[in-house]
Parts: sequence; C-alpha cells; structure tokens
Amino acid sequence: MKLKDIGEHEFIRRSLSKYLGHNIFYDIYTEDGFTYKIDGFQLSYFFSFMDYYDIGWKAVTATVSDIITSGSKPRIILSSIGVNSEMEDKQLEAIFYGIINAAEYYEVKYVGGDLNNSEKNGWIDIAGIGKKLCDAKNNPEEGDIIIISDEIGFTSEVFISYLNNFNIPIHEISKLRVKHPIVNKNILNFYKEFCNYIVSSTDISDGLLISLQNLSDRLNYSILIEDFNINHSVYENLRRYGYGVNDILKYSGEEFSSLFVVKKEKAQEMLEWLYHYNFSSKILGKLGKEGENEIKYKGNKLAISGWDNFKGWY
Amino acid sequence: MKLKDIGEHEFIRRSLSKYLGHNIFYDIYTEDGFTYKIDGFQLSYFFSFMDYYDIGWKAVTATVSDIITSGSKPRIILSSIGVNSEMEDKQLEAIFYGIINAAEYYEVKYVGGDLNNSEKNGWIDIAGIGKKLCDAKNNPEEGDIIIISDEIGFTSEVFISYLNNFNIPIHEISKLRVKHPIVNKNILNFYKEFCNYIVSSTDISDGLLISLQNLSDRLNYSILIEDFNINHSVYENLRRYGYGVNDILKYSGEEFSSLFVVKKEKAQEMLEWLYHYNFSSKILGKLGKEGENEIKYKGNKLAISGWDNFKGWY
Repeated sequence: MKLKDIGEHEFIRRSLSKYLGHNIFYDIYTEDGFTYKIDGFQLSYFFSFMDYYDIGWKAVTATVSDIITSGSKPRIILSSIGVNSEMEDKQLEAIFYGIINAAEYYEVKYVGGDLNNSEKNGWIDIAGIGKKLCDAKNNPEEGDIIIISDEIGFTSEVFISYLNNFNIPIHEISKLRVKHPIVNKNILNFYKEFCNYIVSSTDISDGLLISLQNLSDRLNYSILIEDFNINHSVYENLRRYGYGVNDILKYSGEEFSSLFVVKKEKAQEMLEWLYHYNFSSKILGKLGKEGENEIKYKGNKLAISGWDNFKGWY
Repeated sequence: MKLKDIGEHEFIRRSLSKYLGHNIFYDIYTEDGFTYKIDGFQLSYFFSFMDYYDIGWKAVTATVSDIITSGSKPRIILSSIGVNSEMEDKQLEAIFYGIINAAEYYEVKYVGGDLNNSEKNGWIDIAGIGKKLCDAKNNPEEGDIIIISDEIGFTSEVFISYLNNFNIPIHEISKLRVKHPIVNKNILNFYKEFCNYIVSSTDISDGLLISLQNLSDRLNYSILIEDFNINHSVYENLRRYGYGVNDILKYSGEEFSSLFVVKKEKAQEMLEWLYHYNFSSKILGKLGKEGENEIKYKGNKLAISGWDNFKGWY
C-alpha cells in the first residue's frame, strides 16, 4: 500500500508503534533529566514571502518549540542540511545565519552538523537536546484544565489564503507567524513557577485537533472544549470568504503555541501569570471521562482533521 | 558563486568557520562527557545491490561510527526521514527495520524522531548522543604513531567499478562493506585499555586523505605516511584495470575504519591487542613537524583528493 493512502499518522500507529511504543513520533523523548528531539522539513515548503534565512530560523524554532513546551531548557542543537549544488553559496549562508541567530535568541549552543548534496529539493533537520527544568509528575484527573498559551488562527489564514491563490488578504501578523515564528521563552519561567500543578503539555505542530487527540490518547481521558481561542480578526476575515471554525482548526498547523493540562485549583492564577507576561492565553477546556479518547465541543464528538505529511490536509 | 564551484569543504572553511570555529563540521561535538553527532544522506545514494533495510542500517552505522571512534559509547539515536508519499509502506518499514536492528547491534536506544514527505528523492538523518568513555588528553608530539584500525580499499573497489558501469569485478567483501558496513564495537574496549596513550582519532568518511588532512589541521602537525594498509587482493584487482594507490585513496570514502594517533611507546602493544580482536590494523605513519599541515609519502607532499558533497570526487 502506498504511504499517501495510509497516511503518516496511521503508518506510525500501524507499523512503528509495535516496535517503538506509542507517541514516540509525536512527542519528545525524555531520559535521565534530558530531552531529545529531531524535527525537519523539505526545503520546498516555503512561501514567496520567506527567504533562506527564515528557513534556518524556522527549523530551529520547530525543534526548540517541543523542547521548551516540555519544560526543558534547550542546550545544544545540530543541523543536517541537504541542498542542490547549483545553489548560490550566499543562499546556504543565509540558512546558517538563520540557524545561528535563532540559536542566539533561544540561548542554545549550535554545534554544527552535517552538510549534503541533494539532487532535488533538499531538506533541513535540527536535532536538539534540552535539560528538564520541571519533571511534571501529576496524574491526570477528570476536571483538569487545558490552557492554550496563545491565540491561534494566524497560520490557518496563510494556509487557507494559499489554497485560494492568495486571493484572501492576510494580516501582517499572520504572515510573520509563518515567516518568523517565535516560541515564548517565558514558558520556561511558567514551568519553574507552576511545576507542581502541571500534568502534561504538547505543542501544536500538525493542527490543534491532532494535538488534542494525541493528548487524549496519551492521558487516556476525553477532552471537553470550551473555547478554541481563535484570533477574532482572523476569524472575521476568513468568515467573509466562507471559512468557519472547523476550517481554521483544520489548517492550524505550525502555530508553535503550547497546550498545558493543569490542576484546576491553580488554573486562574496561571492565566493571570501568563497575561502578565503577554501571552494571550485562555482556558481551552478540560479533561472529561477516563478511558475515553474523544474530543467534544458543545456535546458533539469532533472529527479530527489537520495536517498529515503523506496525505496533506485531511 | 555556486556551491558546486566552491565545494563543500571550502564552503565550510570560508563561510562557516568564522562563526562556528574549525572542525565543527567534520568531527563530533563533545561537552560535559557527552558526544553529539548528526549524519545523513539523500536516499538516491545507493547501489542496485542495496535495499531499503540497508539504508536504515547504514545511516545508523555512519553516525555511530563517529561516536565510537571518538571513544564514546553510543546511548541514544533519533531519525529524521523524508520519503515520497508514493512509496510503498513496506519499503519505509524496511528502512525502520534497518534502523532498529542496527540500534540493537550497537546497543543504543532508538527513540523515534520525525517523518516527512519529500517530493523527490528523500533523505535520512540520524542524530546520536554518546557517553565519553575516555577523555584522551595527551598533547600531540613529533613521532606519535598513527594506527589505522583496518585495511581499506573495499569501498574504493565498489566506487571505481561503479564509475566503470560495474565492468570491473567486485569482491563479495567489498560489496558487503558498502551494503552493510559494521563498526567494530571493540574500539570501545581499545579505548578503555589504552586511554592514557591515545592523542586523537577520526573515522574515514570522505576518504583517507581528507581524514588525514583534517587530523593534520586539527593537531597542527604534518603526517608522514609509511603504509596505507590497502587490502592486497583489492589492490591487485584494480591494478589490472589501470588503477593505482592514488585512485584507491581518492575513492576510499565510507570505509568506517578508524585512525588513532597514539604514543609511540605503546603502539606495538596496541597493535597486538587489535590483532587479537581481529582488526587488520597497521601503523599508517607518524606525526612529523609541528606547525606543518602536510601529508607526506616517501618524502613527497600528497595532493588531497576524496569526496566532496558538492563537487563529487575531486
């Protein structure tokens, strides 16, 4: 069977989980107080408003996002890049400047890596190692609160506009979120402050619903949604072109926002802390029944949609 | 300027060294007793006698080779793979079997990683983290001995035959060295036994001469060659088709043999130890004058040739 017919998520579930256990391809690996992550993409995944510098920056951000969201301070990153040898040296240099600048921003040591030829598109991978600051050991319980660190919808606006040949206008902030995503380093201070009340976390890489489904599978609790925290003016803009909440959720990949499952009694204090540090956080919802693996909104089970590397958006 | 005109090695020297220091793209990174490496290649780099399983195995071996040769026990590996979604699921599974089997063989924990779509060729990267067993702290001196862990020439035979449309016969062992390379894990016991007498080490990835030049640059000593340790029957075979020592050296990439710079007084004992453990080691040569960065054979300076990812063989 072809990979495009199975899809990435199902391939991992069907073919790899039996050897490697669950979640291994979605989450970060933690052992002895260190966290390990590798993340990458092919070089053809970029828009006309992005340049090679942005590619390097974005690749580092994608890896660092998982490390920071897991409550670990990123320490070391390595890169592996494949490019066509017809490329101009200045373009490859720009990728490295992007990596080096991002490494400075996230205060992580960039220690080099590998460089290869690629006959076609090329690729970039960033491996990262972090040091765990908080070992969140709380068991999940019904009623635990799910906080989303920031508003979403910005990347959806870009992806949906892209699918419409860019005939839908895009907010400048949305373009920036795709071109130059930034993970808020204050998440690490959030962990330091509230470590004892955090149950679990994940970032939003393939779309909010996929992240929620992974969270539900991992904790083995259903998730009851209250508010998706979609940016209002993005919502209004897309609504004018016939796109609704479901579409925004489907196309919400690469937001680099974080989801935190936290203890109810601290949720309000956490939100206030996050506002204070300029996050636009909200309570997304809460854990429902143990042993159920559904995502529910207004009493209805949501169909999971988002990005699959082999299928595309589904 | 195009990358193919500068070449990978010169690009690193010219554009990256100023930011990242020297050697950062050739060697392994070491900090606080841990070693870090990422290594990869595009998926089109394989011969008809190789299958997808071999790709996974070989990618792990390439990364583990650097870690083991540096005197570190490999502990954790992660993979990032890009493949075309038209690929059969069984083929991608085979890559993972190769990774998983190699991880078992090298006693390293495989903890997953990333999976991506690639419109064309695809790629595989393996990141590895090792624990330093020996912190070789000896300063180099004129007269230090260079040991090569094994005979070379096997991969040269395959590459040279390939450049001749496989009209030159290939020894079975040579084919195996390319298809299913194995790093001898006893190198770690060698380090345990002789740690106090080892000055430096490197593996042979882009060709013996390039590895020697890197070693010479790093230690800041010239290198005087005595014997290249080329396998006799490979040498005889290639000689019949007009290829000599220089050609074998030029095409000697991906041997996964190790070079050790060691103290003279222990060299003989080390060689005996290595013979005992079935290495076909030899004294390759010794360090010459400090401050010189030449490779000399029979009094003549050797021109450096080997593999460059942007130029090819040069």
